[in-house]
Amino acid sequence: DNSKLYCLGSGQQHLNEPLLDHREGQLFLTEAFKVILEEVLCKGTDVNEKVCEWREPEELATLLDLELREYGEQQYQLLQRVRDVAKYSVKTNHPRFFNQLFAGVDYHALTGRFLTEALNTSQYTYEVAPVFVLMEDEVLSKLRSLVGWAQGDGIFCPGGTMSNMYAMNLARYRAFPEVKLKGQWALPRLAVFTSQESHYSVMKAAAFQGIGTENVFKVNVDDRGCMMTDDLSEKIELAKSQGAVPFLVHATSGTTVQGAFDPLEPIADICDRQGLWMHVDAAWGGSVLFSKEHRHLMRGVERWESGACSGIQLLECNFDLLKRCHSADATYLFQQDKFYDMSLDTGDKSIQCGRKVDCLKLWLMWKAVGSQGLEERVDRAFAHTRYLVEKMMKREGFQLIGKPEFVNVCFWFIPPSLRGKENSPDYQDRLSKVAPVIKERMIKQGTMMVGYQPLGGRVNFFRMIVISPQLSYQDMTFFLDEIERLGNNL
Amino acid sequence: DNSKLYCLGSGQQHLNEPLLDHREGQLFLTEAFKVILEEVLCKGTDVNEKVCEWREPEELATLLDLELREYGEQQYQLLQRVRDVAKYSVKTNHPRFFNQLFAGVDYHALTGRFLTEALNTSQYTYEVAPVFVLMEDEVLSKLRSLVGWAQGDGIFCPGGTMSNMYAMNLARYRAFPEVKLKGQWALPRLAVFTSQESHYSVMKAAAFQGIGTENVFKVNVDDRGCMMTDDLSEKIELAKSQGAVPFLVHATSGTTVQGAFDPLEPIADICDRQGLWMHVDAAWGGSVLFSKEHRHLMRGVERWESGACSGIQLLECNFDLLKRCHSADATYLFQQDKFYDMSLDTGDKSIQCGRKVDCLKLWLMWKAVGSQGLEERVDRAFAHTRYLVEKMMKREGFQLIGKPEFVNVCFWFIPPSLRGKENSPDYQDRLSKVAPVIKERMIKQGTMMVGYQPLGGRVNFFRMIVISPQLSYQDMTFFLDEIERLGNNL
Repeated sequence: DNSKLYCLGSGQQHLNEPLLDHREGQLFLTEAFKVILEEVLCKGTDVNEKVCEWREPEELATLLDLELREYGEQQYQLLQRVRDVAKYSVKTNHPRFFNQLFAGVDYHALTGRFLTEALNTSQYTYEVAPVFVLMEDEVLSKLRSLVGWAQGDGIFCPGGTMSNMYAMNLARYRAFPEVKLKGQWALPRLAVFTSQESHYSVMKAAAFQGIGTENVFKVNVDDRGCMMTDDLSEKIELAKSQGAVPFLVHATSGTTVQGAFDPLEPIADICDRQGLWMHVDAAWGGSVLFSKEHRHLMRGVERWESGACSGIQLLECNFDLLKRCHSADATYLFQQDKFYDMSLDTGDKSIQCGRKVDCLKLWLMWKAVGSQGLEERVDRAFAHTRYLVEKMMKREGFQLIGKPEFVNVCFWFIPPSLRGKENSPDYQDRLSKVAPVIKERMIKQGTMMVGYQPLGGRVNFFRMIVISPQLSYQDMTFFLDEIERLGNNL
Repeated sequence: DNSKLYCLGSGQQHLNEPLLDHREGQLFLTEAFKVILEEVLCKGTDVNEKVCEWREPEELATLLDLELREYGEQQYQLLQRVRDVAKYSVKTNHPRFFNQLFAGVDYHALTGRFLTEALNTSQYTYEVAPVFVLMEDEVLSKLRSLVGWAQGDGIFCPGGTMSNMYAMNLARYRAFPEVKLKGQWALPRLAVFTSQESHYSVMKAAAFQGIGTENVFKVNVDDRGCMMTDDLSEKIELAKSQGAVPFLVHATSGTTVQGAFDPLEPIADICDRQGLWMHVDAAWGGSVLFSKEHRHLMRGVERWESGACSGIQLLECNFDLLKRCHSADATYLFQQDKFYDMSLDTGDKSIQCGRKVDCLKLWLMWKAVGSQGLEERVDRAFAHTRYLVEKMMKREGFQLIGKPEFVNVCFWFIPPSLRGKENSPDYQDRLSKVAPVIKERMIKQGTMMVGYQPLGGRVNFFRMIVISPQLSYQDMTFFLDEIERLGNNL
């Protein structure tokens, strides 16, 4: 009986009874699970359904009735809210969602996430997370073996930005261990080096961690977006000449827009000569390590001091620095008189106190498909990318920014009215307006989602991401047809 | 047919077909959901079942078969793994789990978390998270109204530590806006003030953000653990006399161990006089704001510059600083030529790029029980605490550390062999060994979980947390009986 009032007790007289009825709660959760299956996972992955159900913000706020009030609602109303949230949310699991650096659904990973949420624990001690302390260790050590390390240390982080921040802190701590106690004011001006096309989190980290954004030296890139090592050497000399002390090169494996891989071997050579920490931000490209065919893109990876790894967002570090650098020795959590091996209480390695369990989703997916299955997914994404690029090159109006190294396909769509007009003075200006209009049309019609941006001297171009394990050739063809349909009259 | 091989395609010849069969995936998820219901939510909340199933690490690793291999497993094996992970994990939803600052299950919140995971989006733009951008805004503005503000800004964070770090960065930026560009090395030595019993994340933040742990001045507390404002004034003068520049007072509403509330009004007076930023870490105690009866504990809260709020882990700030302080203007994400109001793209306020959706679980729970239901929960936890304290005072062998201000009940259990021996020279030493042994016994028997720690000059004592909405008087009685049963022969 869904319309029954959901009663949460009515005050002090019931203190002797549990506040919440588990049976009713579980009933609600079960009904909501059916809605999630239907709306998010069935309809949300059906090519015949929309990727998004666009509404103007004012209209959406009204439809959702967001206001929080004095009294609670009935079960059937709450279930309708679950349905509405699903309906008006973007379907990132949809085969025509190419908008971000994530897409598609893995049911084993999702199972791991549901189980993580239901168990609701924190990763800090063996006492409260015995399974996950051991599991995190296994996943990290397996990933280290992909990198080519027999040992090291690591931690899962809430996102690639945090991984990069951990690395910046570790690198600074290795160079100047007194920074933990005294702070940056007692240090000389420091200098970080990263490519012009690296992720913006380097700038955020420099600001947040007291290093300063003007102390991030941006190294020139080639046409593909890869760091130019000659310029890296020059920028290091430039920083020194300004009195700054270089301590960290933040290289990228898989840049955000072009998917470029910085040349790790020559960068590592420079870092060796100069005594700098080499961090590799592989938050996007690190999955190539699973593939025998494509791991050459990260040749030299075993020489990194730390790395932020693909999708799973973690920090690997080849020194035993995490704990020394981050510990605060809270006695209420890390008691020294426990009855088990206290080295299993890994919580003092992290800057967070409570830390969500992030390893289970990856572990269960890996158990389900094996290293071989993960490799196949990576190879498949590359194969789809090649297919798309080939088709694109045969179609009039599609102009690639460059040959993709990874699964980012960057291109301009040149509508018929602009073809052959490359030399007219307003060409660039008119071209820059094409992608935003096509984007608006696709979102309002809900047929697909793909991102665009300017980059350096290039005006707005599309960045198509080929990553979902559920993609087929048909989806590639659809994509090209749909860009034409939406943009041909521009 | 669960024993059927879960086929993920077998290579290039199938590129034209989706890699993953949604029907099979959804079947697996549905079966796993049943396991979660049964193991985590039914058995995991049943007082007749164990809170934890203790295993030594080596044995547990073997039982779980953690190793990740070349080939994937069959569905029925994977379902068994889901069951095993649940079985050997600590049941934090169990009514006898008193070990951490979280406990119990709210089925609406859990529904919100499942839906969040299934939708798998990021909070950065209205384009990709239309529902959640608007929802976060509503939840934050409702929380601000509890604080007593008509406007302000805020953000959900991955934990209280991150909230505190945001506050430290904002406070530094207000005092020295050039820090973003130039870094801390160009600034004078800074000084932060916090109580001796504040959370250890203040130290972690100072280390991580380049301020330095020796520049955190620890202010004395009274017996209850509340900051002494006379000493705060003295420590500020001390810092100045050392040439440091005070910029931030980090006050606490609800300390980790004793649950103490710093006196916000006099602290705010001092901050006003000295021009310091007052941050209030209410990550533990902030829920009192929901209660008309108990919100006096945070009297003066409306004078904070920023606050980290209860459980939900967010940062509220009364300045429009978040974006200026943290922005990096990534053009691939925050395009300036979008067709909707770009102020809705809130992603540049955060230091993270991808940011998980955290508002839905709270919003759905709030919709379900209303402000009135949340208030009732808070009042109920206080009432349970009073009940427990009364019963405890009547039992021989239970010695309170102090009268609780909040829902932390800190006490020593004095076993019969130690009663009346307070003056013997080895009393403190013997008392310090009581809690660890009781803890080991309870974990190995799985009957309940409660934390202990030393604090200042006090040897190991228990910290009982009365927070789960599912607690009853019986659970309180059980707790006292069980401590006696486990410790009476010591």
